[in-house]
Amino acid sequence: MELWYTEKQTKDFGITAKVKRSLHSEKTDYQQLDMLETDEWGNMLVLDGMVMTTQKDEFVYHEMVAHVPLFTHPNPKHVLVVGGGDGGVIREVLKHKQVETATLVEIDGKVIEYSKQYLPEIAGDLDDPRVTVKVADGFMHIAESKRAYDVIMVDSTEPVGPAANLFTKGFYSGISKALKDDGIFVAQTDNPWFKADLIQQVYKDVQEIFPVTRLYTANIPTYPSGLWTFTIGSKIHDPLKVKDQRFTEMETKYYTKDIHFASFALPKFVKDLTE
Amino acid sequence: MELWYTEKQTKDFGITAKVKRSLHSEKTDYQQLDMLETDEWGNMLVLDGMVMTTQKDEFVYHEMVAHVPLFTHPNPKHVLVVGGGDGGVIREVLKHKQVETATLVEIDGKVIEYSKQYLPEIAGDLDDPRVTVKVADGFMHIAESKRAYDVIMVDSTEPVGPAANLFTKGFYSGISKALKDDGIFVAQTDNPWFKADLIQQVYKDVQEIFPVTRLYTANIPTYPSGLWTFTIGSKIHDPLKVKDQRFTEMETKYYTKDIHFASFALPKFVKDLTE
Repeated sequence: MELWYTEKQTKDFGITAKVKRSLHSEKTDYQQLDMLETDEWGNMLVLDGMVMTTQKDEFVYHEMVAHVPLFTHPNPKHVLVVGGGDGGVIREVLKHKQVETATLVEIDGKVIEYSKQYLPEIAGDLDDPRVTVKVADGFMHIAESKRAYDVIMVDSTEPVGPAANLFTKGFYSGISKALKDDGIFVAQTDNPWFKADLIQQVYKDVQEIFPVTRLYTANIPTYPSGLWTFTIGSKIHDPLKVKDQRFTEMETKYYTKDIHFASFALPKFVKDLTE
Repeated sequence: MELWYTEKQTKDFGITAKVKRSLHSEKTDYQQLDMLETDEWGNMLVLDGMVMTTQKDEFVYHEMVAHVPLFTHPNPKHVLVVGGGDGGVIREVLKHKQVETATLVEIDGKVIEYSKQYLPEIAGDLDDPRVTVKVADGFMHIAESKRAYDVIMVDSTEPVGPAANLFTKGFYSGISKALKDDGIFVAQTDNPWFKADLIQQVYKDVQEIFPVTRLYTANIPTYPSGLWTFTIGSKIHDPLKVKDQRFTEMETKYYTKDIHFASFALPKFVKDLTE
């Protein structure tokens, strides 16, 4: 018997992956959590029927969420990750020596638990002494934080289920208050082929709050369309104006200094969403 | 009943698309040809079980094959497209006013016939007076051409079936002879997630023949991994050194001047394939 996991990324299109076995399946307090062992992608974390990360391609998302804002900020000491219970973004954040504290606020403790068990090379750094893990509502944590962080990264699921309020203007406004005076935030904002309206709306909302608003992309093969977007809101620092000497040597598999700048060059139909 | 077309892009991973109906299905002299009407992508041309183009995302591939080399060449008058029977690359080539002749050499006349019927907005310009359509073997046409073309574009299927000899060093050597003294060629060279070896081999082969060899990428959601590569071999002109004033206004949906340069910024794991 062959087992295949098929994800409908839209109602009419999807991906399908051969599965060796299901490692874990559970309805948590917040979502359906599945951990699959696949032939092509290694272990794969699926939340509410959507691929969150896989061992083979996880580096793209995690590097591109973390390094673009962290190299944009001249001296990021205090970093917050909202969501991101698999620990991949934290792993990349810790590659920056200036970072003194990295706080992870994940609503679903089960994501952390099963990532540690089945995605150890992604979640391994959650036990680092610089890291504080809070199992709590990211929206509430943001509302309670004032001028606390240099960089905030929103590593959420899609705007359905537990992450719905992480795509609202009220949330971005809270983020602005939770950031220091030269703070930067980044959020994953889905793909331009199937979710153009979402990207357009978020960009507009962020632009009304942050002086510097930028959209960038990366190729993530297990995400819908393979082209993912990230929206940056920044109070002062512009990711397009980072000086050469700011880029320090770092071991990566996707991110480079050239990719940093090139990722902001948008295909015409994507650029149109920001105008 | 729901009909879904599933393409195994590797033996363990693929895409699946809801199908309204099969418009045409035929075993031609060269390959299995299917034209599907899909819900997500519009009409879709499938050769030997691999998506070649769809109405919704075709612009990416066709623009990126055509405009990168054509804007790199200072004055492209005579252009050859090998393969590309759907006509999409020709449509983009004709947007360049300097082009006096555009020759299409497609081995399978059925691809042209059914593209004209079911993909009219892609194939429509094949009847333009500047265009010559030859139903013939591209490998042979190249072997018989000497200093004939300014730009050659290889818009082939994968290196199995009729296109196998279009991925050989002998072919690239023939292309060099078929090009004028400042000629440029580009070939589609698959994706870096599943076909790293192919990219590496082609790059090495092209580099041994052409002084300027470059790899660039584009996001094509219906192709494996969503990240497609193109390899350029050029005798003189460097796509990274195109002057600002060379870029003329042109209606596109993906290609822009910024994308031209940014597409050569490679993710680290892709860059490694060229070193």
